Amino acid sequence: MDTRVPGLFGIEHPVIQGGMAWVADGRLAGAVSAAGGLGVVACGAAPLSWIEEQVAIARSLAPGAAVGANVMLMNPDVESIADLLVRLRVDVVTTGAGSPARFIERWKEAGIKVVPVVAQAALAARMERLGADAVIAEGCEAGGHIGEMSTMALVPQVCDAVSIPVIAAGGIADARGAAAARVLGAEGVQVGTRFLTVEECRVAEVYKDKVLRAKDSDTIVTGRVTGHPVRGLKNAWSRSMKSLERGVSDPHELEGMYAGSLRRAVEGDAEGGSFMAGQVAGLVKARGCAADVVSELSEGFAAGEASACAAASLLAGVREGGERRG
Amino acid sequence: MDTRVPGLFGIEHPVIQGGMAWVADGRLAGAVSAAGGLGVVACGAAPLSWIEEQVAIARSLAPGAAVGANVMLMNPDVESIADLLVRLRVDVVTTGAGSPARFIERWKEAGIKVVPVVAQAALAARMERLGADAVIAEGCEAGGHIGEMSTMALVPQVCDAVSIPVIAAGGIADARGAAAARVLGAEGVQVGTRFLTVEECRVAEVYKDKVLRAKDSDTIVTGRVTGHPVRGLKNAWSRSMKSLERGVSDPHELEGMYAGSLRRAVEGDAEGGSFMAGQVAGLVKARGCAADVVSELSEGFAAGEASACAAASLLAGVREGGERRG
Repeated sequence: MDTRVPGLFGIEHPVIQGGMAWVADGRLAGAVSAAGGLGVVACGAAPLSWIEEQVAIARSLAPGAAVGANVMLMNPDVESIADLLVRLRVDVVTTGAGSPARFIERWKEAGIKVVPVVAQAALAARMERLGADAVIAEGCEAGGHIGEMSTMALVPQVCDAVSIPVIAAGGIADARGAAAARVLGAEGVQVGTRFLTVEECRVAEVYKDKVLRAKDSDTIVTGRVTGHPVRGLKNAWSRSMKSLERGVSDPHELEGMYAGSLRRAVEGDAEGGSFMAGQVAGLVKARGCAADVVSELSEGFAAGEASACAAASLLAGVREGGERRG
Repeated sequence: MDTRVPGLFGIEHPVIQGGMAWVADGRLAGAVSAAGGLGVVACGAAPLSWIEEQVAIARSLAPGAAVGANVMLMNPDVESIADLLVRLRVDVVTTGAGSPARFIERWKEAGIKVVPVVAQAALAARMERLGADAVIAEGCEAGGHIGEMSTMALVPQVCDAVSIPVIAAGGIADARGAAAARVLGAEGVQVGTRFLTVEECRVAEVYKDKVLRAKDSDTIVTGRVTGHPVRGLKNAWSRSMKSLERGVSDPHELEGMYAGSLRRAVEGDAEGGSFMAGQVAGLVKARGCAADVVSELSEGFAAGEASACAAASLLAGVREGGERRG
């Protein structure tokens, strides 16, 4: 079967680094791209000058390699960021927290591949109609901002809904997850949590330690009441948010409490920060470097090929039989 | 690699039918067991006489084949049900909604295999220490009562935590899901939603139609406020429960609203029932019979073997490297 992601992005391995705001800077993105994956600078709410600087750092670390940027569409400065990325001609833009509809044409004209993160099959199909080059189907086991569907249920349904490549995200931290994603029909994987502990990642030591020590049940979802659920590790901050959320009548009252919480975590505030991480934090037991992660996940993904072909062929047989019968 | 589930249960295919209360009767369980899977009669809150009758029906439909029963541990009659199952000498007991600790010895002495459903690795390890023969690791994409972790994140972490066989549940409805479960390390799959539409399933036609028409995003979780979250299809009942849950100060006030809601769905009350189903409802496009489902999922599971071995071997290599280094 065809795995179109490397050819589409001009990369060697179909491993995309998640666009984690405050975390994914030029050093991390450059290390991933230099290792043959797709490094992604997270624009988050950063100033334009920071974004430009980090893309330059990534490119200097990975000369000639593709480099991507992630755009958070709720950002009030999204228009200027969209234009900056056109000027910088990054290779790929991944988008989160909304629909990138109004930017797709602009980016594609600049030769940028556009890859929205989706959490539902219908949205994936709409993105394909609007010209997206691929979609990232992200399950709710992921860290950070999440949807409702799990990777296991979402990826095959998105694959059935679109013809463009589907990249699986959420729940992938080792060879088993990467191989399973391939078997579900994905043509690439996006990984966030596993990159938090690598040496090129800028987060404070306390953040890395929390991930390395996490058990499977150590994540919690805050922010459901605001309509913007976020998964992170349990700590004093997330426990107190959960308890405030239970009693609140107007969720907007809480907005000030979420503000700045991720930045505090990245900078090492153990009890006052929001340590975004996925349910696979419990599988992350090593630090290592970005190149180790790219190679481990790329090999895992390739290990899924044999079973992906076998499962796809069984499915086609079942569907053909169904059509013949009725 | 070894897939111990068929030998352990005395069945041909490592496909276990979910113990869906009000749904999984002797006719469905018998059809699954006759096809070489493990059919499971759901004891739910049914009278002892009904349970005895349904086990007899299942056995008559599948002479000589293994038949299981599911016990909901919150049931106030659980002691009498536990003793009845000893007397009936069912082959396997699966348990949900609590810890079966106090029954394990009794059941094992009667030659019954004990298989708790778990939603966390630590609970799986505890069940192994208490003598469980296998565990079902069920992700939150499943229908009915759910935990917090997804199948993709949960199954590998449970596999790392126990030596007994792990059966994956949640998010599995076709060959891709079954193969992916194998790749994640499972030695069998438990499937619920996909059995709802088969001809041997007793649910009303309107229930089957709702599953067949469902899109990926058509499930919703009610009951989070009560500490007993349940996934089902969106309808008037689930929407009104969600809105009541938002405003309630004492969740116990709502208990009467949940009571009887599943039974109403099974009997065909389109707007007033709780149509429990998983996020894979959107993948279920066929009716067919139980034997079709067992054979499709069993072939899918077998298709996962090649990649499961490859991924396990990569993982072992990475871990050995990590130990050498550190």
